[in-house]
Amino acid sequence: MSIEADRERFVATMREQAEIGGTEDGGLHRLTLSEEDERVRDWFAEQAEAAGLDVTVDEFGNMFAYREGTDPDAGTVLVGSHLDSQPYGGIYDGAMGVVAALELVRTLDDEGIETTHPIEIVNWTNEEGSRFQPAMQGSGVWAGEHDVDEEYAKTDPDGATFEEELERIGYKGEVAAEPQREYDSYLELHIEQGPYLEESDADVGVVTGIVGFTWGAITFHGEADHSGPTPMQYRSDALVAAADVITQIRRIPSALGERTVGTTGYIDAEPNSINIIPEEVTFTWGFRDPTEEVIAEARARVLAEAEYAADREGVDWEYEDRMWADPVNFADRCVDAVADATDDLGYDSMRIFSGAGHDAQHMHKLMDTAMVFSVSEGGKSHSEDEYTSWDDCYTAANTLVNAAVDLATE
Amino acid sequence: MSIEADRERFVATMREQAEIGGTEDGGLHRLTLSEEDERVRDWFAEQAEAAGLDVTVDEFGNMFAYREGTDPDAGTVLVGSHLDSQPYGGIYDGAMGVVAALELVRTLDDEGIETTHPIEIVNWTNEEGSRFQPAMQGSGVWAGEHDVDEEYAKTDPDGATFEEELERIGYKGEVAAEPQREYDSYLELHIEQGPYLEESDADVGVVTGIVGFTWGAITFHGEADHSGPTPMQYRSDALVAAADVITQIRRIPSALGERTVGTTGYIDAEPNSINIIPEEVTFTWGFRDPTEEVIAEARARVLAEAEYAADREGVDWEYEDRMWADPVNFADRCVDAVADATDDLGYDSMRIFSGAGHDAQHMHKLMDTAMVFSVSEGGKSHSEDEYTSWDDCYTAANTLVNAAVDLATE
Repeated sequence: MSIEADRERFVATMREQAEIGGTEDGGLHRLTLSEEDERVRDWFAEQAEAAGLDVTVDEFGNMFAYREGTDPDAGTVLVGSHLDSQPYGGIYDGAMGVVAALELVRTLDDEGIETTHPIEIVNWTNEEGSRFQPAMQGSGVWAGEHDVDEEYAKTDPDGATFEEELERIGYKGEVAAEPQREYDSYLELHIEQGPYLEESDADVGVVTGIVGFTWGAITFHGEADHSGPTPMQYRSDALVAAADVITQIRRIPSALGERTVGTTGYIDAEPNSINIIPEEVTFTWGFRDPTEEVIAEARARVLAEAEYAADREGVDWEYEDRMWADPVNFADRCVDAVADATDDLGYDSMRIFSGAGHDAQHMHKLMDTAMVFSVSEGGKSHSEDEYTSWDDCYTAANTLVNAAVDLATE
Repeated sequence: MSIEADRERFVATMREQAEIGGTEDGGLHRLTLSEEDERVRDWFAEQAEAAGLDVTVDEFGNMFAYREGTDPDAGTVLVGSHLDSQPYGGIYDGAMGVVAALELVRTLDDEGIETTHPIEIVNWTNEEGSRFQPAMQGSGVWAGEHDVDEEYAKTDPDGATFEEELERIGYKGEVAAEPQREYDSYLELHIEQGPYLEESDADVGVVTGIVGFTWGAITFHGEADHSGPTPMQYRSDALVAAADVITQIRRIPSALGERTVGTTGYIDAEPNSINIIPEEVTFTWGFRDPTEEVIAEARARVLAEAEYAADREGVDWEYEDRMWADPVNFADRCVDAVADATDDLGYDSMRIFSGAGHDAQHMHKLMDTAMVFSVSEGGKSHSEDEYTSWDDCYTAANTLVNAAVDLATE
């Protein structure tokens, strides 16, 4: 029943994309709307056109490559991910989902298969959210979650706007950034970015949903003072209060759930001088879990800890919610298509919740969605150490190919 | 026995200097070797020359204004402080010591007093150490603690070298930065920068010494990872380890001594992104105390805490000692001259150890030294909120004048 993707071609295509913005240490530095992003977009368009696909670019830079189906009334099966990377990130994150989708249409051509449903490959703009916020920006705009003009006005750390940069690289298209046709379903292959598959000796992951999360920032306002002559009991040290809460953010998940995680990724202290008591410190919280109740409880606890720490240190405080995402449970029929593909191919698969956000969570609002995860060695990502063996890459790609054919065939 | 400085003239001169680099909020932004520093140096030279003093500038920008004594063999009494300020600091820190020294020679002229010993006013270059490190740079070079060429090569955050900036403002003199004559003693008036005088309802402080300190930095090397899919037990979070130690730096002084203080003033996290587990975090320690043993013990404890925190979080760590200063005990005859002056003037004085470093600690290595402290309201300094009433300023200035006359008269 199953078809086989071309391992050699798939690996060669992965290697090709990895050269565009590749780093000396074997990683990838391909920030969204950079010159490297422009080059990888040009490369993707060439690959898609060479496969006979019709390439369009929307006003937000999202790229689509369309393959006809046999039934003019059948909804399109959308398959893809993103080609942008984290600063000095890995060569698999995102890119493998687009390369696997290219391999899907190439395999169909090899086998002379016509699908009932059209198939469309997508490369979403700015999934990473490191140069311009928020993450998953292109898919979010396309899903109607963000306003195009508001997102155009976002600036990078050098003050360049998103719109200027999109125009500069020549990828501001004419088409509105919203669905232009009827869609049946969405499939996305991605590396796990966590250790669960490797730990369980699974070949590939059948992703059943995405954890939800809360992101926010707390600021303590203390009093700047000379660090020498100010007795300890006179101090209102914003950094001590922050340190208190950061240690609690490490501890809160252990009281809530086995899949709960909590992180402070960002901290800024002012005036940040060895000889001055810190006056103002801002730092972030982030908690993720598969259930909404746990996420809400984690957020409540970190705010309570901020209150305790502020009392202890005699500082003022405020907080700002930055982002909230409900946990997502993917559509059974898409999850089943992925699971069936792994069974047909004889892979040892494992059902898994995604710990990271993906463009799939915006697609989930518009259509039935599921994901395929490849093993991530050591769970490392957002780093040049990110690694997946070509065997594991191919296993995931082959799963995607077969699940997509299943969904695209009536 | 005592003489009286001119309160009105002294306050007017304080106000005059405070206009050079004065901020909207009543503070002072007069970074070393800035345009504002150039202007206040020009102003100081004018004031000194108008008082008939012989002004010289050494190769490191230290400014001296010399008044003859009657005995050609008597050592000079050096009196002064610094005219540079912290970024958005206060108008008293440093400047008052120079203005009070000007008031000293003006009062002597008013009263027609000739002293046995010559008197010299000094304005030390870069006491603050915020634009170029280290603090007390000019007096340190002059005392032979630092090499002139090494200090010339130091750069500010914009990459300008000390030497370029010194030349740019026209204050690189010809004279070697080292004592050019025989000195008898050094006196410095400064604001307390701590709350002890105000707390004790004292009029003025007789400074008997300066606390010693240890400064250093600890760096934790963890692993960068996506903050979503990485389970808590897989993490090596450099910021969590840092937070652990920062809370201990708050606690260590309470176990050591009533005058011990401990501070983390600086922290830097990489990559510092809300969605990535911190890979590398560097932060500083600073401990001060009047006794060497306590300072050494505090340093040992913070290093032990770093080891514990690294073990807990599974991160690597290293540290760097940045500075060590032994506690200083001033010369009895100079401390007595200050104490006698307060008695003669009928002031309610208090003996006090300085919690902050001062140029006086470099002078202490070369000659008998003591200091006068004015009350600091709320102990605030290194901030625009720094405040001392004119009454308290004048009390301290009058004490300095009389102590200096005592030392300069045989």
